[in-house]
Amino acid sequence: MSVDIRFVPVDEFARVRQPGLAPVRLIPVLADMCRINALSAVKLAGSGHLGSSFSAMDVVAWLYYHEMNVRDVGWNAAERDVYFSSKGHDVPGLYAVLHSLGVISDDRLLRLRRLGGLDGHPDVGVPGIEANSGSLGMGISKGRGIAWAKRFRRVGGHVFVMTGDGELQEGQNYEALQSTVQQGITGLTVIVDHNKVQSDKLVGEIVSLGDIEAKFLASGWHVTRCDGHDHARLEALWAELRTIEDRPRVVIADTIKGRGVSFMEHGRALAEGGGYYRWHAGAPSDDAFVAAHHELAGRVNAALAELGHEPLELADVRRDSTGEPFFAKNALGEPVSTGSQPATAAMTREYVVEAYGAALIDIAARRPDVVVLDADLAADCRTRRFELEVPDRFIQNGIAEQDMVSMAGGLARHGLLPIVNSFASFLASRANEQIYNNATERTRIVYVCHYAGLIPAGPGKSHQSLRDVALFANLPDFTIIQPVNATETAQALSYCVDEAPGSSMLRLVIGPSPRQIDSPAGYQLSRGRGWVVREGSDAVVMSYGPVMLHEALLASEILAGQGISLSVVNQPWLNAFDIDWLRSATDGHQAIFVLEDHGVTGALGDHLLSALIQNGLLGGRHFKVFGVDGLPACGTPAEALAAHGLDGTSLARRITSTLEPRPA
Amino acid sequence: MSVDIRFVPVDEFARVRQPGLAPVRLIPVLADMCRINALSAVKLAGSGHLGSSFSAMDVVAWLYYHEMNVRDVGWNAAERDVYFSSKGHDVPGLYAVLHSLGVISDDRLLRLRRLGGLDGHPDVGVPGIEANSGSLGMGISKGRGIAWAKRFRRVGGHVFVMTGDGELQEGQNYEALQSTVQQGITGLTVIVDHNKVQSDKLVGEIVSLGDIEAKFLASGWHVTRCDGHDHARLEALWAELRTIEDRPRVVIADTIKGRGVSFMEHGRALAEGGGYYRWHAGAPSDDAFVAAHHELAGRVNAALAELGHEPLELADVRRDSTGEPFFAKNALGEPVSTGSQPATAAMTREYVVEAYGAALIDIAARRPDVVVLDADLAADCRTRRFELEVPDRFIQNGIAEQDMVSMAGGLARHGLLPIVNSFASFLASRANEQIYNNATERTRIVYVCHYAGLIPAGPGKSHQSLRDVALFANLPDFTIIQPVNATETAQALSYCVDEAPGSSMLRLVIGPSPRQIDSPAGYQLSRGRGWVVREGSDAVVMSYGPVMLHEALLASEILAGQGISLSVVNQPWLNAFDIDWLRSATDGHQAIFVLEDHGVTGALGDHLLSALIQNGLLGGRHFKVFGVDGLPACGTPAEALAAHGLDGTSLARRITSTLEPRPA
Repeated sequence: MSVDIRFVPVDEFARVRQPGLAPVRLIPVLADMCRINALSAVKLAGSGHLGSSFSAMDVVAWLYYHEMNVRDVGWNAAERDVYFSSKGHDVPGLYAVLHSLGVISDDRLLRLRRLGGLDGHPDVGVPGIEANSGSLGMGISKGRGIAWAKRFRRVGGHVFVMTGDGELQEGQNYEALQSTVQQGITGLTVIVDHNKVQSDKLVGEIVSLGDIEAKFLASGWHVTRCDGHDHARLEALWAELRTIEDRPRVVIADTIKGRGVSFMEHGRALAEGGGYYRWHAGAPSDDAFVAAHHELAGRVNAALAELGHEPLELADVRRDSTGEPFFAKNALGEPVSTGSQPATAAMTREYVVEAYGAALIDIAARRPDVVVLDADLAADCRTRRFELEVPDRFIQNGIAEQDMVSMAGGLARHGLLPIVNSFASFLASRANEQIYNNATERTRIVYVCHYAGLIPAGPGKSHQSLRDVALFANLPDFTIIQPVNATETAQALSYCVDEAPGSSMLRLVIGPSPRQIDSPAGYQLSRGRGWVVREGSDAVVMSYGPVMLHEALLASEILAGQGISLSVVNQPWLNAFDIDWLRSATDGHQAIFVLEDHGVTGALGDHLLSALIQNGLLGGRHFKVFGVDGLPACGTPAEALAAHGLDGTSLARRITSTLEPRPA
Repeated sequence: MSVDIRFVPVDEFARVRQPGLAPVRLIPVLADMCRINALSAVKLAGSGHLGSSFSAMDVVAWLYYHEMNVRDVGWNAAERDVYFSSKGHDVPGLYAVLHSLGVISDDRLLRLRRLGGLDGHPDVGVPGIEANSGSLGMGISKGRGIAWAKRFRRVGGHVFVMTGDGELQEGQNYEALQSTVQQGITGLTVIVDHNKVQSDKLVGEIVSLGDIEAKFLASGWHVTRCDGHDHARLEALWAELRTIEDRPRVVIADTIKGRGVSFMEHGRALAEGGGYYRWHAGAPSDDAFVAAHHELAGRVNAALAELGHEPLELADVRRDSTGEPFFAKNALGEPVSTGSQPATAAMTREYVVEAYGAALIDIAARRPDVVVLDADLAADCRTRRFELEVPDRFIQNGIAEQDMVSMAGGLARHGLLPIVNSFASFLASRANEQIYNNATERTRIVYVCHYAGLIPAGPGKSHQSLRDVALFANLPDFTIIQPVNATETAQALSYCVDEAPGSSMLRLVIGPSPRQIDSPAGYQLSRGRGWVVREGSDAVVMSYGPVMLHEALLASEILAGQGISLSVVNQPWLNAFDIDWLRSATDGHQAIFVLEDHGVTGALGDHLLSALIQNGLLGGRHFKVFGVDGLPACGTPAEALAAHGLDGTSLARRITSTLEPRPA
């Protein structure tokens, strides 16, 4: 990183927060100081969500600095007021506020998306964080649970839940609106951060919410609307709301995505981006970072001067022992982002999701029955090209995975072949019953589960998908494939569309490949058959996808130095095996290992073991599955892999310890 | 069955449907004739949903007899109008209409909830059925998919989707309202069968919908409201709606649950039932059946006389070769119901769900932190007693499983221990991501998955849960237990509440036990340890729950006659094993079988095989899993078990064929 990253240390907040100063003068300054820290943390992390951290910041600042009782009663007191964000990706802003109040240390603030630092989405393991979120639409329900518990326990305290506006496309919100009123919950205030932009487009262009106020009113809520950056109005608003005690309350806060940095504010940013908003996710470039930092610090310093304060004293980021700042990288040493930042040419060559996007276009040309469905992740899932080039067969569904999947069921019943896209964690899980319902109709649908597996590990548990293969279990005639490279990705998609006996689940990693793993010359995907990536004679490890096959190859290289010859096999078919091939692939090996980019249950390992036993192929050999045990770690790829013992070095050690003779 | 069951054969409909007769005079008569057939079919089946079959009947009759083009263009024509019910449990009424039009034969009409007959919830395998439903809230999404496909393919045809009113508690509906307008879908009409009653209570007492009209209007729909039994109004309504071509349309049809049979109509029925509606599900008693049949036939005959027709000529039900009518029974030979009919004393003694309901009360007394959550299945899940006796700790959430689970997450974070109840098929699947989200917060929650497994098989695929154990895979520290009898159920619930290291999934069958399987004297549930139900020396079969252990015992009895000694072991711990116990339980057996009340993947078999292999306990022995392969069959228990080869006789045969030496 070629720029200096400086931040506002906690002492500076203490200096600025003088007693007696009117909140309406002080809080805007504190909010901008927090914006500086969110900006610096995201820049250091290499990823994170600035746009909505900034749009929500003024409201969050008012809650913590003025409205909530947590500073007085303590952060673990039963009677504390509770705030959390349901959308969760605005957490860099929240961390900055918690840091400013001394809850999060200077050091930890700067360890965003690092192991032992601050999770990429909210996690209750971090001080001050009240709820895990990041998958959308759960917050009002969860906040109601907290409010119910407070009422039942008679401990006092109000619950504040922030939602996005795009997030209101999730149906669970409407379940919660109804039940909150029926249950007589009054200690709950929902704030809609109505910044008009979701991911990279206007909400109204994705799926309009219609009349938001009418929807809340129809369920019996008290509705207030305000400018979410008007500090005088915010002060008055909280005072007014305290008098509404007979029903739950919603504040629809009209805000500006990217508020506080002129070129990130959505009006200008959309105009400059040709209708696309580029500051939703991902770290800014060096130039953008410097400009944003300069603008924010300048405004803070001007305000401080007006208040009679000295200018900000910013602190340098402390480097680790190697002199590097904490900086989230992938296994290529490149920044990891879950946003829509374009990958570099070098990164894209073997990038499975890029190959997927291109293959969709090829398939569209020869299969007029193919339609592509998206739940507002067109950039990340690389369906944007299809959206632009084949618009009449692209269906935008908004953030509503259940609705998308059931719609696909209807399309499939009436002559079309839907290809349904979302992140694996959302598609396999949120829409699980809808996928089953479609399966009971025996139609053919391709479910593409993007962002599967442990890496990138920066966004944290809500986004890492280590359960999805198991969630597709016991569906009739379902094929589950995870390809390792661009060639295999294109072939796998063709297989799902043209050949699979029923529906398919295509599982894709979202990040760039840590190394290029070429298929054999003339390779043609064949059901149930994997292929040998590296020959070995002592033991075999089967895996899939570029992340874990890279680690398996690393392990194989390490073991070679110890005189152990480990065969590495790519098996893209996670629940189908050609038995002749399986026999030959395992023949002569004293041990069979499986390396999962998944939890240890219900994926390749279980399916493979069952096939080996049913076909009498295991004999007395070792069989062991290495997978992601427990909840996935948040951090850089190297950190997360090591935390689960799945990096090449750990694997090599685990393999040798298995191969050693057992003590009698 | 001691009453004669007579029905209206298809010829009678042809006789009554005279050309030239005004629809407003004819259709009410046809509707009542269909009510007779729905009543007779449900009585024969021993279960089924009459209340909403009757409330929806007049609207459905107008659609099929007057509005839709299917009689003209054919039932498989691309340009056909499409109707389906999203709630799906009103399907006996729909079958009756389809039968009256010659789509379903007389014989098949009377094979409701029988293998090869008519599924208990809609299934596209039945002629005229357009969509699989029964799990609530998917219909508007799916109907939109069909409408989109029709528009894209330019084939014409309108789509009509019926929803319940209680069903509108499901959030997916609101996702669909938004996206339907955004996608410019106009060929879709939703009809809300607004009969005011869900399951056995008023919608307004469970979770009020608030202002329904306002909700549809706020999303941009055209809204009409009408009396859903006023035939003159219905005729005019469809004519009016044909002129609304610029947006999707909803008809809120105010109806009466149980319409057409005086004592089933919800006003009187609620008054007579002390606020509970008893005709939602389940077959009527003989007396009630006779009275209802008499009332309907009397009204039809009076109307026929006015129209100058002879009275109805009803037909007798044809008996099968044994002289028995087709009659859904459980393995005890007793009627199977998914409704809230009280079980007989004899049935309840070893009834796990009854024991569960009682155990909840005991636990409430000693654990003041326990709260019980329900999603409108209080009668079926036996939480009603808790609701009445411990009302301050009972939380009614309506039909909104995702909202319920996330609320539980909030409760658990703030000092309470939630016990969350629904049917396994809905809880494990619909709320899967919310369960995961809660798990990432490391709180303790007990999820009780009722109605798990293959039996009762009458309601069909939407209700049979054969995937739920796999859906709980890879959640950290989750204990999964399925008890076999009342004693074990109480102990299992206590374990989940008091001892389990993290959250738990308690898996329960809903029906009466086919045989009483007593635990050993002084039995105390101990983590990971099962117990021997029947000693044997040649091979061992492990299973769980009363349904499959009964079949295993039957197999063991059959095999004993063939000189094969099969040990039957109850292993209630589906994902945890005490290895010492496992060694002793399998020691000396030449083969280990697992009998799943679940699909073949991701349940006891996979977990057990993994434990055997990891601990070197399998050796060269046979290991085989018998489970529900493919989609679960609909039918009587005996039919469904046999269809999957899981009845005792089939199992005995499959076991002997495994034990025979393999051909070289």
